Amino acid sequence: MWGIIATWRMAHDGVLAAKELLEQEGTCGDAVETSIKCVEDYPFYKSVGYGGLPNERGIVEMDAAFMDGDTFKIGAVAGIVDIANPISVARKLSNEKFNSFRVGQGATEYAMLAGFERKNMLTPRAKKIWKKRVAEVAKTNLSPYDGHDTVGVVSLDQHTGMAAGTSSSGLFMKKQGRVGDSPLSGSGFYVDSQIGGATATGLGEDLMKGCLAYEIVRLMGEGVTPQKACDQAVYSFTDLLKERYGKAGAFSLVAMNKAGEWGVATNVEFTFTVATEKEQPAIYLANPGVDQTTIIEPITKEWLDAYEKRIKAPV
Amino acid sequence: MWGIIATWRMAHDGVLAAKELLEQEGTCGDAVETSIKCVEDYPFYKSVGYGGLPNERGIVEMDAAFMDGDTFKIGAVAGIVDIANPISVARKLSNEKFNSFRVGQGATEYAMLAGFERKNMLTPRAKKIWKKRVAEVAKTNLSPYDGHDTVGVVSLDQHTGMAAGTSSSGLFMKKQGRVGDSPLSGSGFYVDSQIGGATATGLGEDLMKGCLAYEIVRLMGEGVTPQKACDQAVYSFTDLLKERYGKAGAFSLVAMNKAGEWGVATNVEFTFTVATEKEQPAIYLANPGVDQTTIIEPITKEWLDAYEKRIKAPV
Repeated sequence: MWGIIATWRMAHDGVLAAKELLEQEGTCGDAVETSIKCVEDYPFYKSVGYGGLPNERGIVEMDAAFMDGDTFKIGAVAGIVDIANPISVARKLSNEKFNSFRVGQGATEYAMLAGFERKNMLTPRAKKIWKKRVAEVAKTNLSPYDGHDTVGVVSLDQHTGMAAGTSSSGLFMKKQGRVGDSPLSGSGFYVDSQIGGATATGLGEDLMKGCLAYEIVRLMGEGVTPQKACDQAVYSFTDLLKERYGKAGAFSLVAMNKAGEWGVATNVEFTFTVATEKEQPAIYLANPGVDQTTIIEPITKEWLDAYEKRIKAPV
Repeated sequence: MWGIIATWRMAHDGVLAAKELLEQEGTCGDAVETSIKCVEDYPFYKSVGYGGLPNERGIVEMDAAFMDGDTFKIGAVAGIVDIANPISVARKLSNEKFNSFRVGQGATEYAMLAGFERKNMLTPRAKKIWKKRVAEVAKTNLSPYDGHDTVGVVSLDQHTGMAAGTSSSGLFMKKQGRVGDSPLSGSGFYVDSQIGGATATGLGEDLMKGCLAYEIVRLMGEGVTPQKACDQAVYSFTDLLKERYGKAGAFSLVAMNKAGEWGVATNVEFTFTVATEKEQPAIYLANPGVDQTTIIEPITKEWLDAYEKRIKAPV
């Protein structure tokens, strides 16, 4: 059995590339890295890699992580700049016994010395959006923050291996050095090949209050289905946050177990993409339903056309 | 009821100061911050704040986090430099809805602009130890890494509030920008006032593979005692890591529940300090026992004298 699930419509082309690999008995690690690199490289996705929206100073600071579900090896970077593929840096770091999570200048220098491709990650389009927002924020009193769509992937390969990965340019207009959940084990991602894996997207500041990726994997380890594990973790924590913190930010999690079964839960409209040995690659739309359930439906052509138009609309 | 538990003998003076606060109906947040500041300020503790051992380049890069168990608010910094009290910066950040986890230059700049005390954190003694190690590493092929004693505190106040905090200068001789578990929710710390809290110390690279602080709080939430929760989480994860990763680094966790009961588990010799409304402040020595248990005994005068001598021994 093989399978892959990923957050957001933007991950679909990457899932298609990973599918080819997984069908040919490629590894889950390669599937995770390949699929996330596709998203990082595509200039019209505003929240990951090249074309990602910058921080308040106009710098594209990126976070990424990779976890191997066989060994629990983790590699992560936060606040890395000028590197084409943060996910590849995170994956390489996962092989280090020490110093496997690197932030800021230390992360960037590590990647440069290790020979990873350098790239100015700020596209002219992203710069234009940023300049516009800076001007808007100067004029109004609106919160400058918007957009925190992390690509998060969980994959299962034919050798029973599982891996998870994340990559994000973080909150648009974030303060210098702000880090969300993406590089944080348990909050942004978690995977155990003998159980399954989960990854998150959404407001990192709130996700790290709940450690939902860990919790979903733990529930699956108790025999709960991926869908029920996601529903239980996401909706009860959304309620808990509202009660205790007063408000819950938007967040969504996807999960897959070692049998290739998957689940999704979200407190906001959310798209995701999945492919398994048994299911054709497809993009779905998810919404919170009643009584701690999730409504999942195939994406429509109208939705996809509108999306395509939106991401490429003149700034 | 009030209580406070903290990792390592070094936290004892801070616990005494926090005890005064808690007895006077002070808050758990103040108790956590006060106790950790004591450790950060004391020049002879080599792994936290002033006097902490630097990274491979001779820079004291520090990590810290604060969590409020009533609201789940979290503030954290990683790779911050030249700031006297990282725990206070983390606590202040916990009040931010966005940008509450800051790393590297962004963390340092935030602290400076917010008016926190600037300080060169490298003591002449720490510099001497570092220079010696650099020379040793140049001569031998030994791993340069050593020492990762985080101060981690959990506190309960008379208003039923709970808070947790951590502070660390990280692994001695770490690579620039290396981050351990201390600022990571679920791995370095977790607290829920309606259940209890836990904090960790040890090899961060391994701690983040297990999310043990979250797991211990979760177990306490199921009604498990703090001691059994610590034993179950720490020893089963140590075994799992050995099986799956081949090796488990040294780590230790302390926990306290909302009734002021506490627990500790460790896979290596470990000291901790605790005070509650019912128990006089005391330092204990903990060691792994048989069958997933922990041997806890009062510290001896001999141990304390030897410790005092060791931390102040000529370099």
